Parts: sequence; C-alpha cells; structure tokens
Amino acid sequence: MDKVFASAEDAVADLADGATIAIAGFGVAHRFPSSLLKAVRANGARNLTLVANSLGTRGDIGGLMLVENHQASHIVVSISARPGIRTAAENQIAAGELTYELVPQGTLVDRCRAGGAGIPAFYTPTGVGTPIADGKEVRYFGGKPHILEEAIHVDYALLKAQRADRLGNLQFRGGSQNLNPSFAKAARVAIAEAEEIVEIGEIPPHEVDLPGIFVSRVVKSTSHVTAAEWQASRAPRRAAEVARSYNGKPGLTRGQIAQRTAQLIPDGSVVNLGSGIPTLVGNYLNGRDVLLHAENGILGYGGSVSQDEIDPDLYNASGEFISIVPGASFFDSVTSFEMARGGRLAAVVLGAFQVDQAGNLANYATPELIGGGVGGAMDLVAGGSTLIITMEHRDSHDHSKLMRSCSYPLTGVACVDVVVTDLALLRRTDGQFVLEEIAPGFSVAEVLALTDMDVKVPASVGTMLAAAVA
Amino acid sequence: MDKVFASAEDAVADLADGATIAIAGFGVAHRFPSSLLKAVRANGARNLTLVANSLGTRGDIGGLMLVENHQASHIVVSISARPGIRTAAENQIAAGELTYELVPQGTLVDRCRAGGAGIPAFYTPTGVGTPIADGKEVRYFGGKPHILEEAIHVDYALLKAQRADRLGNLQFRGGSQNLNPSFAKAARVAIAEAEEIVEIGEIPPHEVDLPGIFVSRVVKSTSHVTAAEWQASRAPRRAAEVARSYNGKPGLTRGQIAQRTAQLIPDGSVVNLGSGIPTLVGNYLNGRDVLLHAENGILGYGGSVSQDEIDPDLYNASGEFISIVPGASFFDSVTSFEMARGGRLAAVVLGAFQVDQAGNLANYATPELIGGGVGGAMDLVAGGSTLIITMEHRDSHDHSKLMRSCSYPLTGVACVDVVVTDLALLRRTDGQFVLEEIAPGFSVAEVLALTDMDVKVPASVGTMLAAAVA
Repeated sequence: MDKVFASAEDAVADLADGATIAIAGFGVAHRFPSSLLKAVRANGARNLTLVANSLGTRGDIGGLMLVENHQASHIVVSISARPGIRTAAENQIAAGELTYELVPQGTLVDRCRAGGAGIPAFYTPTGVGTPIADGKEVRYFGGKPHILEEAIHVDYALLKAQRADRLGNLQFRGGSQNLNPSFAKAARVAIAEAEEIVEIGEIPPHEVDLPGIFVSRVVKSTSHVTAAEWQASRAPRRAAEVARSYNGKPGLTRGQIAQRTAQLIPDGSVVNLGSGIPTLVGNYLNGRDVLLHAENGILGYGGSVSQDEIDPDLYNASGEFISIVPGASFFDSVTSFEMARGGRLAAVVLGAFQVDQAGNLANYATPELIGGGVGGAMDLVAGGSTLIITMEHRDSHDHSKLMRSCSYPLTGVACVDVVVTDLALLRRTDGQFVLEEIAPGFSVAEVLALTDMDVKVPASVGTMLAAAVA
Repeated sequence: MDKVFASAEDAVADLADGATIAIAGFGVAHRFPSSLLKAVRANGARNLTLVANSLGTRGDIGGLMLVENHQASHIVVSISARPGIRTAAENQIAAGELTYELVPQGTLVDRCRAGGAGIPAFYTPTGVGTPIADGKEVRYFGGKPHILEEAIHVDYALLKAQRADRLGNLQFRGGSQNLNPSFAKAARVAIAEAEEIVEIGEIPPHEVDLPGIFVSRVVKSTSHVTAAEWQASRAPRRAAEVARSYNGKPGLTRGQIAQRTAQLIPDGSVVNLGSGIPTLVGNYLNGRDVLLHAENGILGYGGSVSQDEIDPDLYNASGEFISIVPGASFFDSVTSFEMARGGRLAAVVLGAFQVDQAGNLANYATPELIGGGVGGAMDLVAGGSTLIITMEHRDSHDHSKLMRSCSYPLTGVACVDVVVTDLALLRRTDGQFVLEEIAPGFSVAEVLALTDMDVKVPASVGTMLAAAVA
C-alpha cells in the first residue's frame, strides 16, 4: 500500500463532472487544501457539488476558486455569506446559477461522520424551530423536539494535513484538524495534501490523528499560504473602544460590553465565545479560572497574538490567531461539537441580529445576506448551556434589536438566557426578560424607550459596570 | 479547576444506591479501573446498573467484583458469557437476581457517544434481523433495513488512563483507549484513575486523547495488574495443530484452515480477525501487504508475542498480546467501529456456531450460554465487508455446523460470503453456497454426507491447500 501520488493533478485525475467533493479548511482562509483545489480547477470538472464549512473568501485559497471558475452547481455549507463580504458564490446564488443548502457546522460534521460510520441518520436538537428544520421529521425524545438528519456521503474529500505517511496516516497541527476527519470518513476517496510526507513508521501510532484506512491518496502540498497572508485576508476588526451614541450620550463601548459579560462567567467553567463583541470577552478573562473553547478544535486558548507571534494552526473559530494556555487540548470538529451539543460548556457568548421576548435568537441571516452564515451557532445554542448574547442595543437602521418577535430567520428557539447590550443587561427569568442593569448616564425610561420588547422592570435596577465606573 | 481527588474512595463517595455506572476495560482483564471498582465495592452502593463491554472473568480486576458483591441489579454488556466460563454474573442471571441487556460493542460505544453528544437516537444496520432488534423500530434507508438505537446516559463512568493532569486531560496507551472516551462522554460524572498524575501543561495539547472537559475527577491508580497476571487470566488457547477426524481420517488442522483462509485475503487490504481459528490467520499473513484491525483500537498489529515481550496495552480483540507493525495507529472504539460499520475493512474473518444456506450467521449464543457473547461481531458483519467464516465442519455433538436454517440466535442475516472448514471451502454465489474445495483425502460424497445444507457442486471441485500439500 503506497498511497503517495506524484502530483495533485494525478491525484484528482479521475474526478469527473457531477462529482461531490468535501473540502476541508476553516473560516476565511485557514488550512484549505489549496494545492488540490488548484488541481481540481485545472482538471476542469463541472457540475460539482461542494461540501464545506465555508468556501473562504479568497479565490486563490479556498473552495471559492471552483465557484469562480463556474465548476460548481450546488454547495452544502455552514457559512455561505458574511456581513460585508460578497463573493462569487453569493453572486451566482443571486443569479440562479448556484443552489445551496445551509447546514449547521456541528450537524455538517456529524452527518459526514455518520456517512463514514454506516449510520444512515440520527436525531439532533440543532436547528429545531429554525429554517434548517424545514421539511425534516420532528420527533420528541425526553419531551424535547429533535429533527432527523441524514448521513452525507461524498465521492471525494480534499484534506489538508501537516504530515502524512505512505499508508495515508495523517497528523494535523493545532486547531487545524477541524473538519478533516469527518470529511475523510464520508468520502469514497479521501485525498490528503500534506506539508511533509514521511516513510511508514515515522509517525508513532499514538500520534496518528486520522488512520490511513480513511485516506486513499496522498500528495505533497505545493500551494502554501503564509500566516501573514492569512492575517491579511481577514476583515479588519472593529475596535473595542467604539461606542454608539443614544440621545446624544455614549452607551457602553464594545469593550465594556465584553467586560460586563466576562463578569457573568463563573470560575471553573468552560466557555465558547462567538465572533465580534464575544471575542473581546476573552480579554477580560485573563487570569480567571476559565477555559475557552474554540469550535474548530481547541480547548484552552488565550489572548490574540501579535503579527510576529502568529502560529498558522492556532486560531479560534472567529479566525483570530491566538495563544494557548497550559492544559490546552486539540481535537476535531466532531469532538468539539460533542462538547457543545452535549452541554459541557457552562456558557456560550454570541452576537445577534435580533433577540425577542420569547428568548428566540436570530443571528445568521438578514434580507441583505444571501444564504447566511449559520456556522456553529445553532449547535452551540442547542446544548442547553447558559446563552449570553452581546450586541448593540439598536441596529444600523436605528431599530431595536430587542424585539417582540424576531423578523429574521431564527438560530434558536427560547434559548437566550442573558442579553448584554451597550444600554442594558437583561436576564430571562420565568420566561420573561428582566431589566437588571442599565448603562451609566441613562434612565430606565430612556432605555425602555429605545427597547421594542416587553421587559419586566424590578424595583431596583442596577448600573452596568458600576464598580468599574465608580 | 483541580480535579484530583486524594483517593479512589473519596472520588466515589457520592455514588449512591441505584446509580448507573459505565465501566471501561476490555475483554477478560485488560485495563479495568480496578482501583475505582474496589472503592465502589467498599462504598457498598447497591441496586446498581453496570454498563460495560464485559465485566471480565476475575472478581479482583473487573466489574465482576460488584456483581460478586451483589451490588448490581442490571447489566448492559456486549459480552455476558464466554463458552466454558461461568461467572457470578451468569449464575445470578440464571437465578433471576440480575437482569441484563446485550448490546453489540459498536452500538454500545456509539450509544454512549450519542449520549454525550446531545444525539438522542440514531439508526444503525447492526443487529437487524437478530434478537438485538426485538422491539426496536425498523426503518429503511437506501433500501436497507436499520434499527433505531437510543443514546445511553450514565451517572458515573469509571475510566482507566495512563496519564492525567489536574484539569482531567487524559492520555491512554496503545490499544487501551477503547471504551474510555465514549463512556466518559455518556457520564454526568466521569472519574478516571491514572497510572500517573501530572501538572497542568505537562501533557502537550496534541497528545491529549480525551479533553478534561469530559472528566470530572481524577485519582491515582492503586491497583495494578501485571502483564503476567493478565496473561494468566486468559483461557488457554487450543493449538493450531489440532485436527478433528471424520470417517477415521483427519480433516485440516486449525492452522491449515487459517492458512487457506489467509490465501483468500487480497493484498493491500485491511482485515479484522475474530477469536479462535480467525486469530491464527494472522500467522499466515506475515510479510503480506495486509493490515490487521483490532476493534479495541489498533490498526496494524503483528503476531503474538512471547511472555517477556508483552506490553500490557498491546493486545487484540481476542485478548492476545501482540506486536505492532510500522504504520500502525491507535484510536478509540468509536473510531474502530466506524471503520467496520462504514465498510472500510476488505474482509472480516470470524468463527461460528452455525452458518445456514441463506448465509445467516449464528456465533454468539447457544442454549448452554446464559446471555451470550456478541462482542463486536454484529457490527463487524454489518459493514458489508467480505465475511469469511472459519470453523470446524461439525460441532461437538457431531452435528453439521452448515445448516439448512440456523437454530441458534442470529448474529447477522445473509451476511456470510465464504466458509472455510476443516473439510471444505464454500463460497456463497448468487445466494447459494458453492462447494469450491474439499479437504485432501476426502471425496465430495463424503463431505456432502457430513454437511446438512443444500450445496451446489460444480463440475470441478478443488482440493484445499493443494499447493501446500503437493
């Protein structure tokens, strides 16, 4: 058994029109199998179905290159759109040239894992009550609704490993295992590109992350993206110091929202932080007995790192390059979402487009977004962890994001426990949001006037960050 | 977060009557959490439900000690009985003091994994048409029947690791991961005993086999079983040279059955070998381009080793201590059964009590066995791999084991592809067994007279091992 092919072109030579291809890689530009993707582009096969967490936003790195080259007719993805970024995929969807299926990230990897495990279908709480559940069987277990999800099988999987041996045994680095193992399992032919190919026996048995039985072909990576290039492909982050004004007065800054949120996290807990303001929460957990969970496959990461400290395999699910803390562990996406869906996270902190008074969350799609970017959010809110939403109180059109009823597609039903905005902290108790704190400098009446939701106002309402502000 | 407890007794102090406990460990005596089990025995909690692959056969090592101490009222196991070994478990079952549920090993670990992953139920092909399917929903996917299996949740899991840190991160050794990760995931409180406890940060992130988020408590192992003791607890194996006589003439020896079977294995393939004669097949695959799969979690093992070469964590699913070959990999039982159920094994070689002319297999229970020992066989035959059965042609009561219809409980339906006995090689083609070869020294008429199955006899019938015998 020698699975090494001379070139990426040779390894994909039999890939024909109409094939289904799972493409590993994470986020905007992390560890895509770019050498193999370029070979598929050169191969020219058309009418492809692409399965991926995301296609990336750069046509020189991710699966997007096959869309740009008009080789794809259907995509199955967790993230097809990001606010402010419109790629060839969204344009072709809008033009009716490309169809898509949006799949929550945790469901995506478990459907692929099921495909490789001989499991034809399973029930999951992820996506219940959202557009993801449309047309799917709903069944109650333990009194709670679950939807039936079917296994995904693909013809090919394109993987990106750090090291491979001639038997196809693979090693990944850091948080870059993510979707690779589940995609390999779903595939009839898994093709891995690796930075390094070694002889049989050079990878110790306990360091094999994906046994070669799941891998059919191996090639050496010829397309390399440096950490600096990755960094450059990330959209600029909004500063923590930004504060929005209401009635001519500043609300909390983004950093202050994060600071107050960090105070809600109990010591000794494991927490997942989403993109945007939630990512900033990590800055206020330094030195605390709290472990951060990144759903791409890291438990125990630290703060963001400077340009010269970047390790290309250490990033969180927001795409931030990060450090790791002592006691950290690396794993794949299936394991990562076991932690989330299985309720092992004490808290999940996410951003939102809208939260309504039933505790419903909408954070993945708007009328302006084609497809939407559900990512792992539906899985993260399905595990029953305390869900804290951090967001600005009102949207860019100056509408309250706290609503009587969400108008955007839902991410989760009756799942929000706490909302921290730049104007208020609300906690859902006995099915109703209670106004516990308001931003300094504002009155309860002012905050209520800016809030389009029925809120219970207790006798005493606190001031956000009172201790810090005093 | 410091999860280290001072003693096993402290770690199980809150374990109360009626608790459900998953107990890691494999086979007769491999890597049971004996320190924790002794603490549970001392704790004295009663009316326990025990979940395990097997309880072992020694009351000083495995979960059996809790049964012997009359602390269990129900067991959920893959192996409750082995031919020739009757323990307190079988005695209590026979006396009506203990109830049991028999679960195929691959189903057991996936049900536990599902419990930890927030998946309430899934469909599997394992056990369709067998007593395991009794009372379960059957549903067709891709035109094939599958049964619905529900998640297992337990109060406690007792684990056995090589190293643990204070955050509960665990490392296992060799093939001893097996059920530990899935059991930990299913548990509200997973308690690990480890040979070594280290400070946070001493286990590198990529060497963590089970992240600490799944582990609540850690203690140092105080009960140690040496490799020599393990070896001693194994039942003596029957010699390869043994041959049975028919009509006063010897059939093939057990070794010769294995030798002929090895010739059926294609180069470049991965094969799983069951207990008994199938284990001997490995002796004839040395130097061949074939990888052996041990469902406890090793891909790429070699031959048996002598007493002084024993590594306590290198054993196959039959409990034989083994060597490993270059390119080997270690993994847990969930991954292992993904390989089997997912159809990654080119061939599976198992023993049998009975095979019938519909290709049905019965190899886990007889009227004399209480419960039965299904182990991983139902999962191994569910993946669609070429299934080769090796066995003596007739049983100890001198009845043909090739039958018109199996009288014992089925392991799998219409799954047998080839049968190699000490008298004949039969291949099921177009739904009918064809007599391809007979043992040297026997006539076709003699073999047919010893066979209680309708068999197609082609114009030319070969002689088994003709090349070797000539």
